[in-house]
Parts: sequence; structure tokens; C-alpha cells
Amino acid sequence: MTAAPTPASIFNIGFGFWGAKALLSAVELGLFSELAKGPAGLATLSGRLGLHQRSARDFLDALVALRLLERQDARYSNTAETDMFLDKAKPTYVGGLLEMANARLYGSWGYLTEALKTGQNQNEGRETDDVFAALYADPERLRGFLAAMSGVSLSAAQAIAAKFPWANYKSFADIGCAQGMMPVTIARAHPHLSGAGYDLPPVKPIFEEYAAKHGLSERLKFVTGNFFTDPLPKAEVLIMGHILHDWDLDQKRMLLGKANAALPKGGALIVYEALIDDERRDNAFGLLMSLNMLIETKGGFDFTGADCQGWMREAGFSQTRVEPLSGPDSMVIAIK
Amino acid sequence: MTAAPTPASIFNIGFGFWGAKALLSAVELGLFSELAKGPAGLATLSGRLGLHQRSARDFLDALVALRLLERQDARYSNTAETDMFLDKAKPTYVGGLLEMANARLYGSWGYLTEALKTGQNQNEGRETDDVFAALYADPERLRGFLAAMSGVSLSAAQAIAAKFPWANYKSFADIGCAQGMMPVTIARAHPHLSGAGYDLPPVKPIFEEYAAKHGLSERLKFVTGNFFTDPLPKAEVLIMGHILHDWDLDQKRMLLGKANAALPKGGALIVYEALIDDERRDNAFGLLMSLNMLIETKGGFDFTGADCQGWMREAGFSQTRVEPLSGPDSMVIAIK
Repeated sequence: MTAAPTPASIFNIGFGFWGAKALLSAVELGLFSELAKGPAGLATLSGRLGLHQRSARDFLDALVALRLLERQDARYSNTAETDMFLDKAKPTYVGGLLEMANARLYGSWGYLTEALKTGQNQNEGRETDDVFAALYADPERLRGFLAAMSGVSLSAAQAIAAKFPWANYKSFADIGCAQGMMPVTIARAHPHLSGAGYDLPPVKPIFEEYAAKHGLSERLKFVTGNFFTDPLPKAEVLIMGHILHDWDLDQKRMLLGKANAALPKGGALIVYEALIDDERRDNAFGLLMSLNMLIETKGGFDFTGADCQGWMREAGFSQTRVEPLSGPDSMVIAIK
Repeated sequence: MTAAPTPASIFNIGFGFWGAKALLSAVELGLFSELAKGPAGLATLSGRLGLHQRSARDFLDALVALRLLERQDARYSNTAETDMFLDKAKPTYVGGLLEMANARLYGSWGYLTEALKTGQNQNEGRETDDVFAALYADPERLRGFLAAMSGVSLSAAQAIAAKFPWANYKSFADIGCAQGMMPVTIARAHPHLSGAGYDLPPVKPIFEEYAAKHGLSERLKFVTGNFFTDPLPKAEVLIMGHILHDWDLDQKRMLLGKANAALPKGGALIVYEALIDDERRDNAFGLLMSLNMLIETKGGFDFTGADCQGWMREAGFSQTRVEPLSGPDSMVIAIK
């Protein structure tokens, strides 16, 4: 006996942009940061956030129904998750990624059909063909982007700090380190390690401020470089997180080759990404992330663990393996 | 023991626009109609739909991971659901609603924050303050909108045809009938009934064509009218589906009053909508639909069954009750 088909799951997916945009607007309005100070009623919250009375209640109750807020005795409060991850005042804030989605990706994805037909990126009002050059040229936007990347990497950083056999190594460098979430998380968990963050020059003050804030200025150094034109820094372990997916296949291979060249024999490369499952039929987030790279970059795409291990062996690594992290990310470890 | 909070559900909701837009673009490209003719491989499908090779495979595999397509031996095919509901050649097609979401709502929802701050509708590039006047003025767009409304009403029509005690009545009229999905479904299920569809003049030929296609021209008549300026047609049962939520509270009350005036004693009014649960904490779809009315209309909003029953009693109805239909819709029945 099979139940008669219904269009419910089609509508659930097709109208997923409603709930998404409600959450993105809530982050934009600072709702969760406001509620982190304490529960508040409809009138109070509307006043603080500047919500019009026509739909403030629908908006807040929709977030209750989405399990992003709680409501008791007509007062709204954060859930455990939104309080931990969407309060800007907490170090666990991951809302930078949603701010980026709200400010840029939601609009760019409106051009998905055109991207699918042309193979061309659709980002940023489509006026630039290099999203990174545009980002790095604007200090305010760069800071926002780097904070967003910390949100992306938080869960992965905790898992890599816990799962990788760090006791066997003394040094590491994070390639494309952004704000420094990954080096800080690893260095805090493993006091015997010294590390480096490697990124373009404008990132230096942002990284150093972040490392200092965590009392790690002695053990974490910033190395300035451009991974297309400079060699990678020497270390026993190199990390590349959400880097390879930004680039086309030749660029991916070049970066893996540079990592191999920079490592000592026995050194390790850790690549972590929202890896697509090898059968390409389960990890919807990874496959959609690859469409996000279509929309955001000139040649980037996401890939499976098998794809990555193949490229690593071609680049000269001798052993490779895949380990799941938390959430959609997995890491691929390659030993030289 | 409670598991440590993770940001997974926050990201699932916040990036829900990715999967939504992938589905909406697939409907726009005619993917499911194409696959309804038979399974096809990557190259064949790309050629037929005009997909660029850069991301055709990611796009199709993402739809597999979202359970909207199947893939076997490198050939893609529809699922039971997408074959039944997203093939334009089938009478069960509900994709008109997704076409509308793709062409209009996705973009308008990009202005949700502004709508929340101002209380003003944000539709249609925001150039018009009357979405219905604009729709009804353009025959091609009207036809698309009316077909979309059939998609919305399909499940509800089947449930109302099955659940309401039609044996006790001889006539009905559907107020704001659009293409005529509801009258056709009821008339087919209950041969003793004669019915009417009531809508603005431009709907007449579309309704009559649809009724004729189902061999119901004798039993289903179109009545031309504007429910703001004209009385409602006389019948033993009146139906208003997804009508009241388009309008503000005074307009809702006026329409319920007109329905009461048009019915005989003992007659019934059926209102069906994506009713919000009375506690306003579970039906996310209904609450988000109300935000959609914020974005699409000047004063519309969705409501609970308790709200509706209260207005019905104020309008003169003596008994009221709520019955769930399939999917997010429920009906409120009021007896004069």
C-alpha cells in the first residue's frame, strides 16, 4: 500500500524562500540580539526594532512556528539555538553568513535560471567578474565577509580540533584563514601547537585583532600572501577550508600542488568543505552550494570526497581519507 | 541530557531559498514536463532545456537530493509526486503557483524587511497599489494567475467535495471562482448539484472553457460580478476560498455580511484558507502566507479559525465549525 501522492513536499520546498527570508530579515533587524537581553512583548519589540503594527505579530509568530523563537504569556524569547548562534554579542554568533545571504545571495539567486543557461556568475548586481577582488577592496564589506566565514567554519573548527591527531604535529597554517576562527579554535584546544593564518594583506589587522582578543598573539602569526602568485607557508599541517570550491578544476589542482610542495614528508593537508556524497544523491546542501559557486564565482564548483582524493593523489600525496565533521562539512586528509 | 545546540536548523531554514529557487527554476525550464515523456540522460536533458554544461549536473543532482527527481543508471526521471503535480500536460498540474512564486513572489519577498518596517505592500516592482487590478487588466497574466489558483485549490477542492454534506443541498456558488477548479471538482463528485462560479468579467471565457472541457457546461454557470459593488449570487451553499485573506478586516466583515444576506435560512457558507492555528504557534505556512499578503496586498492578512468564526457570528450566522482539509488548508463552515 502506497499513500496517494500529494503536492505537500513540493510546496514545502518551493515556498522555502518564505521561511528563509523571514529568518534573514530577523537577523538583519537584530531581533535575536535584542531578545538575548531578555524576553519582550509585542509592543516593546515592535518599538525597539521599528516594526509596523500591521504585521509585527505575524512575523514574530511565524518565527515561533518555525521554532526560531519561543512565546510564553505573550512574551517572545530566543530558543537555545537562536540565543547561542544569532546573538551578535556572543562569540558563537554565526549570523554573519545569514547577513551575507540576506544582503547578497538571496537577490543573486533570483537569477539562477539565467546562470543555468549561460554558466555565468550572477553576483553583485552582475557588475563585476571577480567577487573576491570586490570584497577585498572594501574594508567594511571585507570585515563582514570574514565574520560570515567564521560562522561557516565554527562547527568544522571544533570538530577538526577534536578529531585530527594533533599530538603528532607541532605546527600548522590555515590557507585563506579569514578572521582566524580555525587557527584560534585549534590553538586553544592544543597548547603545544604554533600556527599561522595565510591570507591577502587587508586581512592582516582583522586576523591579528581576533587572535589578540583570544590571547593567542604569541602562538598565531599572520603570513601575508596570495596563493595564486606566492608559495604557501611551510608547516607540518596545512588546512584549506571552503577554499577549493571557489575555483575551477585547474586552479584546484594548482593549489593542491602548492600545498604538497610546502609540506615536509609526512606532513598533512586537511581540506574541509560541504563535500557532496560520492553518489551525488544525498547531500542536497553540498550540491546547492555548488550552484551557489555557479552564481558567485567564474569557475568554482563543489565536489565529492572521491573527486578530492583523486586530485590529491595526482598532486603527489600518498595516503588520503575522508572523515565527516559536524553538520554538512567533511574533511579530506592527505599525507605527503 | 540535552544535546548541545547546533546551528543546523538555523542554516536549514536560512538557506531554504536555495532549494526553493532550484525547484522554481526547474518548473520555469519545463524540466518535469520534459521528463514526464520519459527518463533522459544529462546530455539529452541539457540540450532540450538549454542548460549550460558548467552546472547542469549539479542542478539535476541537487533535485535528486531534494527528492524531486530520481536517477538510475545515469538517467533522470520524475518522482511520483513531480510527475503527477509538475507535468503541465496533466490536469493535476499545480505548478502555476510555483510559476507565480518564481515570476513575482521570490523577488517581492526580497523587500520583506521594508514591508515589516512600513506595513506597505512590495509587489510588482512596487509600481501599483492594486495587484488585482493589474492582474485582471492583462489577459495573459490573468490566465496564469487563475491557473495558479487552481494549483492552490486542488487538494482543498477534493477534500471539500468529499467531506461536506452535499446530499443536503441542491445548489452552490463559488465566490471568486478563478478558473473553476472548485466548482468542477464538486460538480463531478455530486451529480445532483448545480453550481455557479462568480468572478469579474475577464474570468468568464476562462471559466466557461474550463467547465466545457470537463463536460459541465450545463450544470455550471458563470455569474459576472464584483463582490465589492454587487450582491453575491443566490445559492444554498456559498464558498469563499483564499478570498478573505486578501482583504482588510472591514472588507472581510463586509464580505461575510453579503454572504449571509445571499443565503437562505439553513444555507451554508464554506470559507477555506491556510488557517493559522488558534494558538498561532504551529502553522508556519499560514503565518508566512499572512506575510505574503503583507507583501502582495494593501491590507490583507490570514487568520485563525477562531477569528473567522467570531466574524461569522457577528455577520449573523448561527452555527460555525472548523474542519481540517488536506495539506495546510482548513474550512470554516457557517450555517445561517
